[in-house]
Amino acid sequence: MAVITVVGAGMMGSALCVPFVDRGHEVRLVGTPLDREIIARLAEDHHHLTLRYDLPRAIRPFQVDSLAGALEGADAVALGVSSPGVRWAAKNVGPLLRPGTPLFSITKGLEWDGERLRVLPDVLAGELPRAQRDSIAPAAIAGPCIAGELARRVLTCVVLTGRDRQSLRTIADLVRTDYYRIFLSEDVEGVETCAALKNAFAMGVAFGTGLHERMGGAHGSVAMHNYESAVMAEAIVEMMRVVELVGGRPLTAAGLAGVGDLDVTNNGGRTGRFGKWLGLGLPLPEAIKKMEGATLECLEVLAVMRDAIAGLEARGVLGVHELPLLREMARVALDGKSLEMPFDAFFGGEHT
Amino acid sequence: MAVITVVGAGMMGSALCVPFVDRGHEVRLVGTPLDREIIARLAEDHHHLTLRYDLPRAIRPFQVDSLAGALEGADAVALGVSSPGVRWAAKNVGPLLRPGTPLFSITKGLEWDGERLRVLPDVLAGELPRAQRDSIAPAAIAGPCIAGELARRVLTCVVLTGRDRQSLRTIADLVRTDYYRIFLSEDVEGVETCAALKNAFAMGVAFGTGLHERMGGAHGSVAMHNYESAVMAEAIVEMMRVVELVGGRPLTAAGLAGVGDLDVTNNGGRTGRFGKWLGLGLPLPEAIKKMEGATLECLEVLAVMRDAIAGLEARGVLGVHELPLLREMARVALDGKSLEMPFDAFFGGEHT
Repeated sequence: MAVITVVGAGMMGSALCVPFVDRGHEVRLVGTPLDREIIARLAEDHHHLTLRYDLPRAIRPFQVDSLAGALEGADAVALGVSSPGVRWAAKNVGPLLRPGTPLFSITKGLEWDGERLRVLPDVLAGELPRAQRDSIAPAAIAGPCIAGELARRVLTCVVLTGRDRQSLRTIADLVRTDYYRIFLSEDVEGVETCAALKNAFAMGVAFGTGLHERMGGAHGSVAMHNYESAVMAEAIVEMMRVVELVGGRPLTAAGLAGVGDLDVTNNGGRTGRFGKWLGLGLPLPEAIKKMEGATLECLEVLAVMRDAIAGLEARGVLGVHELPLLREMARVALDGKSLEMPFDAFFGGEHT
Repeated sequence: MAVITVVGAGMMGSALCVPFVDRGHEVRLVGTPLDREIIARLAEDHHHLTLRYDLPRAIRPFQVDSLAGALEGADAVALGVSSPGVRWAAKNVGPLLRPGTPLFSITKGLEWDGERLRVLPDVLAGELPRAQRDSIAPAAIAGPCIAGELARRVLTCVVLTGRDRQSLRTIADLVRTDYYRIFLSEDVEGVETCAALKNAFAMGVAFGTGLHERMGGAHGSVAMHNYESAVMAEAIVEMMRVVELVGGRPLTAAGLAGVGDLDVTNNGGRTGRFGKWLGLGLPLPEAIKKMEGATLECLEVLAVMRDAIAGLEARGVLGVHELPLLREMARVALDGKSLEMPFDAFFGGEHT
C-alpha cells in the first residue's frame, strides 16, 4: 500500500482515484482553488458534483488550503489540473514534493514558444524548482478515457508516457488494475501532441453531425457518416504530421493516444456538441454560450496551432497546403467564419 | 459524356450510379443472377429494393441475360459484385470487355492461397481472359462510403487504387463530382487489405456495445466507449501489421481506407449489429440468425485470416503474440467461444 495524492478534483482527476483505491492505496484528492464546491460536497457525502456520481468512501478529500498536508508522505503524485493550471501546480505542488517522487499528469495541451511546439510534461518539468527538476521526470497519461466510465470501472486502456522507462514501470505497477490497463510509451512528443489535438479534431468531425441536422436529417445509419469519417481520417493524417513537426513518432497517432482518444471523444466527449452547434450554423458566440461555461480545450489548442502554423510556415518547415483541416477549424471556431470544409486539399490533395 | 456500365446491383454498385449520372454519363446497371428482383423493380419505378430509395430515372437497368448488350460500347466498367462474385465477373464480364477498358471494382475481400494473402484486384486480373489481362489493370475503390448516403449525394471521400497511375487519373476524371471526391493511391495491397479487414474489426468494436447492453446500460455519453475505442485503436495497429504482411504501406491504414472506413462502418454499417449480438452473449447461430440473411463479410475475412495466421506463423513470419484482436474475433465469431478480450496483449503487450 502506498500513499497517492491527486491534485485537481475535476472529472478526470477524481475518476483516477477509483482504480487507486481499488489497488488498496491511501488516496488523497486535493482540489485546486477552482474545486472548492466539489471538495466540500465530496467531504459531505462522497458525491462528485460534475461526475454526478458517488465516489468510493475511501477517497480522502482535501481543500487546497491543506495542500501541504495532503502531499506529506505521498509516494506518488498525480496532477489533474487544467492546462493553464500546470504552472500553478509547478509553483505550488513542486516545492512540496520529495526529490524523486513519481509524478504524472493527465493535463492535455501544447504550447508554442515562438520557435517550437512544446508538450506539457516538458513545460511542467521546466517550471519545477531546481531540486525537484533534477530528480523528477514528469510522466503523463493519455488515451481513450471518458472519466464517467473510468469512475464506473468500465474497461479502459491508457498510455503512460515519459522519458524514463523505469519510472514509467514504477507508476504503472502502482496503479494498474484489471479494468485500468496501462501501456508504456517513451514517445512523449507523440503521445502528448495527439492528446492535445484530439479535442480540436473531434470538433471538426462533429461539424458533419450539425450539417446533417441543419438539413433536417435524423440520427441513424444513413446520415452524414461518410463526411464525418473522411474528416476523422484526415484528422489522423494531420495528427501524424504535427507529431512529426514536434519531433515525435507519427505512428503513435495510430494507437491509443491518437485513433483511440479521438474516437472516444467523438462518441462521448463534450467537444462534439460544440462542433455540432457550429456545423448547424450557429454564430460562434452563440455556440460558445450553448456550452454553458464548459472548458473548450479545442479553442485553446486551435489558437496555439494557428500561431505554430504561421511560425513554421514562415520558417519554411510547413507547406501552405498542409494541415487544411486544422486551418479550416481555426477559421470557423476562432474567427467565426462559415464552414467550407476544404475536402479537395485533404490527403495531400484530390488532384495529385 | 461516356458510357459506364456497372455490373452488380447491390446497394453499393447501385449507389455508385448516382454520381455517374450526375456527371452526365449514360449509366447502365446490370444485375447479377442474384439481383433479378432489384432490377425488375428498378425497371418498374426506379425504386431500389435494398437501398429503399428511388434512384435517378436516367439509370438504365439490365437483367443479367442482357449483359452483353449492357457492355456494348462501354467506355468504363465498374464491378459491384460480392467477393465470391469476382470469379463470376472475370469469367462472364471479362471476355466482353474491349482491350484497355478502364475497369474498377468495389468488392472487398482477401484470399489466402496457402502461401500468401492476395488482394481482390490481383485475383480479378489473374482470372481475366488473356487478351483482357494484358491490357487491363483492374482498379478498386475503397474508403468510408455508406451506400445509402452516397445515393443521397452526401459528401463522400474515397480512395481509388491501382497499379497504373494514368488509368487511375482517367477513371477519377470520369466519375468524380463535387460530392464524390476521389483520392488516388498506388498502394493496392494497403488499401485493399484495409478494406477487407474493416468489417471484421467493426464487429470487434461493437462487442463493447453488446457488453454494455448486457449489463443493462443505456446508450449515451457514459457507456463502454473506453472499451470500444481501445479496440478501435488496436484494430488500426493490427491493420497496419497485416498490410505490412501483404506487402503494402502500413501508413495507408491511417487514412481513408483504414481509419475512415472502419469509423464509418462502426457508425453506420450492419457488421456492428452482429458484433453487438455477440457482445450481448447470444450464441453464434442465434446471432447469425438475427442478421436475417445479410452477407456477413466479417466471417468471410476472419476465416481467411485464420488460415493466413496459421500459415504465416508456421513459416515464422508472424509471432504467436501478434494480432491478438483478430485471433479473439475468430475464436468468438467462427468457433462460438465466449468473449474474453485479450487487452493485456494489445499494443505489443501491457507489461512490456
